[in-house]
Amino acid sequence: MSAEDILWPQLIVLSNRPDLTLQAQVRGAIAQAVIDHRLPPGTTLPSSRRLAEMLGISRNTVVSAYDLLTLDGFLLAQSRARHVVNPSALENASQAAGKQSEIYRRRPDWNTRLLHAPSRARHVTKPVDWYNYPYPFVYGQPDPTLFPTAEWREAVQLTLRSPVIRTWAGDQVDADDPVLIEQLIKQVLPRRGIWASQDQILITIGAQQALYLTAALLLNRERTVGLEQPCYPDIRNVCRQFSAHIVGLPMDREGLSLTAALADCDLLFVQPSHQNPTSVTTSLSRRRELLQAAAVHDLLVVEDDYDSELTFAGEASPALKALDQDDRVIYIGSLSKTLAPGLRLGYMVAAPEFIAEARAMRRLTVRHPPSNNQRAIALFLQLGHYHTAIKRLIAAYRSRATALAEGLRLHLPEMAFDLPTGGSALWAEGPPEISFDSKVKMAAKLGLLFDPGSVFFDHPDPPENFVRLGYSSIPVERIDSGIRALARTLYSSAPSGQHSRQTPPESL
Amino acid sequence: MSAEDILWPQLIVLSNRPDLTLQAQVRGAIAQAVIDHRLPPGTTLPSSRRLAEMLGISRNTVVSAYDLLTLDGFLLAQSRARHVVNPSALENASQAAGKQSEIYRRRPDWNTRLLHAPSRARHVTKPVDWYNYPYPFVYGQPDPTLFPTAEWREAVQLTLRSPVIRTWAGDQVDADDPVLIEQLIKQVLPRRGIWASQDQILITIGAQQALYLTAALLLNRERTVGLEQPCYPDIRNVCRQFSAHIVGLPMDREGLSLTAALADCDLLFVQPSHQNPTSVTTSLSRRRELLQAAAVHDLLVVEDDYDSELTFAGEASPALKALDQDDRVIYIGSLSKTLAPGLRLGYMVAAPEFIAEARAMRRLTVRHPPSNNQRAIALFLQLGHYHTAIKRLIAAYRSRATALAEGLRLHLPEMAFDLPTGGSALWAEGPPEISFDSKVKMAAKLGLLFDPGSVFFDHPDPPENFVRLGYSSIPVERIDSGIRALARTLYSSAPSGQHSRQTPPESL
Repeated sequence: MSAEDILWPQLIVLSNRPDLTLQAQVRGAIAQAVIDHRLPPGTTLPSSRRLAEMLGISRNTVVSAYDLLTLDGFLLAQSRARHVVNPSALENASQAAGKQSEIYRRRPDWNTRLLHAPSRARHVTKPVDWYNYPYPFVYGQPDPTLFPTAEWREAVQLTLRSPVIRTWAGDQVDADDPVLIEQLIKQVLPRRGIWASQDQILITIGAQQALYLTAALLLNRERTVGLEQPCYPDIRNVCRQFSAHIVGLPMDREGLSLTAALADCDLLFVQPSHQNPTSVTTSLSRRRELLQAAAVHDLLVVEDDYDSELTFAGEASPALKALDQDDRVIYIGSLSKTLAPGLRLGYMVAAPEFIAEARAMRRLTVRHPPSNNQRAIALFLQLGHYHTAIKRLIAAYRSRATALAEGLRLHLPEMAFDLPTGGSALWAEGPPEISFDSKVKMAAKLGLLFDPGSVFFDHPDPPENFVRLGYSSIPVERIDSGIRALARTLYSSAPSGQHSRQTPPESL
Repeated sequence: MSAEDILWPQLIVLSNRPDLTLQAQVRGAIAQAVIDHRLPPGTTLPSSRRLAEMLGISRNTVVSAYDLLTLDGFLLAQSRARHVVNPSALENASQAAGKQSEIYRRRPDWNTRLLHAPSRARHVTKPVDWYNYPYPFVYGQPDPTLFPTAEWREAVQLTLRSPVIRTWAGDQVDADDPVLIEQLIKQVLPRRGIWASQDQILITIGAQQALYLTAALLLNRERTVGLEQPCYPDIRNVCRQFSAHIVGLPMDREGLSLTAALADCDLLFVQPSHQNPTSVTTSLSRRRELLQAAAVHDLLVVEDDYDSELTFAGEASPALKALDQDDRVIYIGSLSKTLAPGLRLGYMVAAPEFIAEARAMRRLTVRHPPSNNQRAIALFLQLGHYHTAIKRLIAAYRSRATALAEGLRLHLPEMAFDLPTGGSALWAEGPPEISFDSKVKMAAKLGLLFDPGSVFFDHPDPPENFVRLGYSSIPVERIDSGIRALARTLYSSAPSGQHSRQTPPESL
């Protein structure tokens, strides 16, 4: 056995990565080695037959890899059988590496330079490998088994044709994909009762960018913003970026309670469809009262309608925006909960005066959302796949929500909650003496993940007896054992008999 | 001829859109009509043979369209030949549309509500249909004939496999694709002499987001920022968002001139590789002097290295970041000029303390760049395609730059300029009495587009005798006639003989 038989397989390490063919791995490994100078210019490669033997793969794989590497200029074919590393392969690679300068040395003091420390703001966290846990009651993550794989592939394939690449490859500066705007106007917004024109719509990088742009244009230290209490922490953290005065407005089972504090606000952020974290759906009468109050106090209302499509039975209540005749509502939608959060596709609908400035602000922050994704999603919608995908999600989530509620009634009767009518999470209140925060570590040991409710309260000493249980990522058949694991975790130090059944409180 | 023969072709309008197959168009049109209630539940569709005749397409196309629409729940197959619109196809569609509310009416006053009016800031503009002009000397737009179509398809195909979709579909919160980070560390940054670890890198939505995040963390009304004069207008506009005090620093042929004004600055934005708009490459000695001055005055330096790979001959000078031993430089890179701006992929390299906060700020603004694109670009790099694509661009741009310079010497000898050594634009100065701004409309009539230089100067009365001529989008064979068209435009009202040859000024 020659040295070659040992050396080459070390240079070309074949993994079983699903995202790379063997041929692609061979090409990648050789191209990488040339770029890293591990294969110096002029190096002779083994014959395709020899390398195929050494790597234990088919000869054709090596032949085509060599051919393509030659086309790409990494290799030179000196004969049918002999390939060497192309001496000019790296013409333009910089040799700057490692050059030392002898300038006056001084490290900046980052503590005094950084004006904000957003990394210290509290937000929802989860292990990066959450999907390896048997009982992941996490929130906002999709279930791969529900992703419309074939339909998405079809849409993406269509974006890869040369004439189509021309339409998205360029810099759009501050424009959106007209095909996507058309689909939102014709297909998505009408389901919410919203009829919008092009100058009232802006595509955003998920709902998060829509929230940020809105805050950047409307908040400063002189302005007061009303937030639901409890609420999504990164709405609060965005408002803090602009030093706005924050007022927490209590939730009840009808939605945001219309207290006198409203009068102090310039702007409200609300989630009427399925509030995060409480999953409360604002009633139609409360929606009308809220708009009435907004008009009376001249408040702007941001409606974060990120998952309204996920309504289990009957129609979703009309969006606030559908009832708004004064362009007072800034509407935010998202495909994160219904297609895939990783695609980061959201949109906003508001008065043309506002959208024009949001568009310019978007240009300054990112220019525009990636246009290949805008087109792929537009085609996905145009082919009718979105409608189908949502129906599939609703069927799955409805049964999971039911199983989750049954599991809680059976194994944790002392938990107070309402059965979700939509969305992807259940919000529950435990007995006051329970601390979900203190159980996170122990739960993880049992393969169980949940979101303690405390992070959603804007309070120095938030309650620890609330929990958000997401069901978008856990198979229905694991839910019952997942709740049993939760019960074990909570009462590992005390038998549950100690706790008396709580009656559901009137207010969350 | 029955009414059907007239009605159905009106409902199912087939275009010659390159991005949709006939089958996809038939499916899309029918799905859309069902969603729009133009095809009420229970409507019987024509037999596949009849519809095929009416539309003048193959019957198989209609058959498979019907089959897929049935699978998707839009149609019901009542027999092999008979399809009707599925009554439950729209179960969840909201009927909210058109509902009226009778609330107290009042329109917000957007003039008092909006705190910023970024839409009024000057920036570079071009016709949206610039690619229809025969002589598009535009900047920052790719040439579709140079896009690595097959290589990009290969990379995207790999991201569409089910196990790979799992890795990108989820919400990454604030994380980046580890495969992309690895490729930047191993393949892209070393070409610039930069050796970075994972905690020093952040993926951004183009260089623009990197500029914005940097300004958001480091600028406020108490801070002073130094900008090259002339410079990219949207760097200036971003700094204004944070009310920073702006100092314009003159450029000479070595790069930024190191004047006393540096001492007043907290932060500098520089583009040492090919400055936009002047295309000046900062000399190695000036780079060292700049770092020296930055250390002495304790300035932070933002290095916008957006197109350094496009260096025509020999090695690119090492990045400032490669010479920086104090983590004083915040380095920004981009794939917009070398792959496609529409993909919006950039990255930054800086001190871990800074990157940690930039990452959290990115979470608040957009969460993360779309992860399917991050993975596709990572695989494109891993397959060695980036290296090849850049070589192709350099070859094309070098010959275009040469043709452009020859054209100017021949047809506009009074223009002063330096032959670009890289990048994708040439900056030229005309006689003082010339106004490029005043010629834009007339030029467009001749099919000619260029960027007047005035927008790059931060001055109430900027010079109008500079022009930026981009050559990333114009075929080499059109350049000479393009410059002749420019000459005609400039002297349409006066013969060029009137102008005497200008000697190039020492300072730009």
